[in-house]
Amino acid sequence: MNLNALRKVEYGMFIVSSNYGEKKNGQIVNTMFQVTAEPCCIAVSINKKNLTHEFIEKSGKVTVSILSQETPMTFIGKFGFKSGRDTDKFKDTNAIVGVTGAPIVTDFAVGYLEGTVSQRVDAGTHTIFLVIVAGAEVLNDKVPMTYSYYHTIKGGLSPKNAPTYIKP
Amino acid sequence: MNLNALRKVEYGMFIVSSNYGEKKNGQIVNTMFQVTAEPCCIAVSINKKNLTHEFIEKSGKVTVSILSQETPMTFIGKFGFKSGRDTDKFKDTNAIVGVTGAPIVTDFAVGYLEGTVSQRVDAGTHTIFLVIVAGAEVLNDKVPMTYSYYHTIKGGLSPKNAPTYIKP
Repeated sequence: MNLNALRKVEYGMFIVSSNYGEKKNGQIVNTMFQVTAEPCCIAVSINKKNLTHEFIEKSGKVTVSILSQETPMTFIGKFGFKSGRDTDKFKDTNAIVGVTGAPIVTDFAVGYLEGTVSQRVDAGTHTIFLVIVAGAEVLNDKVPMTYSYYHTIKGGLSPKNAPTYIKP
Repeated sequence: MNLNALRKVEYGMFIVSSNYGEKKNGQIVNTMFQVTAEPCCIAVSINKKNLTHEFIEKSGKVTVSILSQETPMTFIGKFGFKSGRDTDKFKDTNAIVGVTGAPIVTDFAVGYLEGTVSQRVDAGTHTIFLVIVAGAEVLNDKVPMTYSYYHTIKGGLSPKNAPTYIKP
């Protein structure tokens, strides 16, 4: 078995955010896909240890910002390699509030989706949240970032909490 | 709400296959992601109407061939726009059998994953199958195809049964 095959799987790059009252948090996610067209439903896999997971559990709200290829590594580092328990990721970050009331990061985003959790699937270290889409907008025509672009062109890594972490 | 935002979401392109005894079938899928690293678990969303869904339900076996950018439209058409109820998709298709016993398409594949269903999530028109990976191999170093490459470079469409179908 050669698990390097997993490195051939393509993904987009997203910031998934949620809030609990006034508290806001978001994190880098590559594991997001559309599940059904009617109703429009997406699925996202989030590590149970993450603060964003806690906020999604509490509020049932999820927003997904679709990142552009231009997203700098410093920005990915802020949302991907730091915990919202130690730092306010939304300080100096442009965000809007849509129909769900949860924050939507607009920096380096080409568009976004937002909605309410309809199902939670316990997958061990991670929960898969199924989210009925209630809002969606296109922000610009820039090229979305792929996970392979992040790895091969940007030289990016995957944190240990990621679903797609592979032991070096 | 502008659901064209969904068109900005990147995916890979895969053939998901299964079997029921001697009967084999497979279909094009873009909605596949890794859920957890330990155990290595992937999720795939399949329309309940599809023959591959029926075979996965019966056998609990899933294989995923990761398609290269070179995959011709005729091959995608064979696995993506035809039903295995009307045609034998594995006729004139190169496939191997791995550890699960289910067929793995190797034509135009850069690698593959295979495993056994651990959870079924009813998502309305589709089922999300969680699959514990039991086998995986890299077949070559070719570039994997992305969904946006399929749409923008190849001019490909999405069938009505796809999770990511958007009304024109």
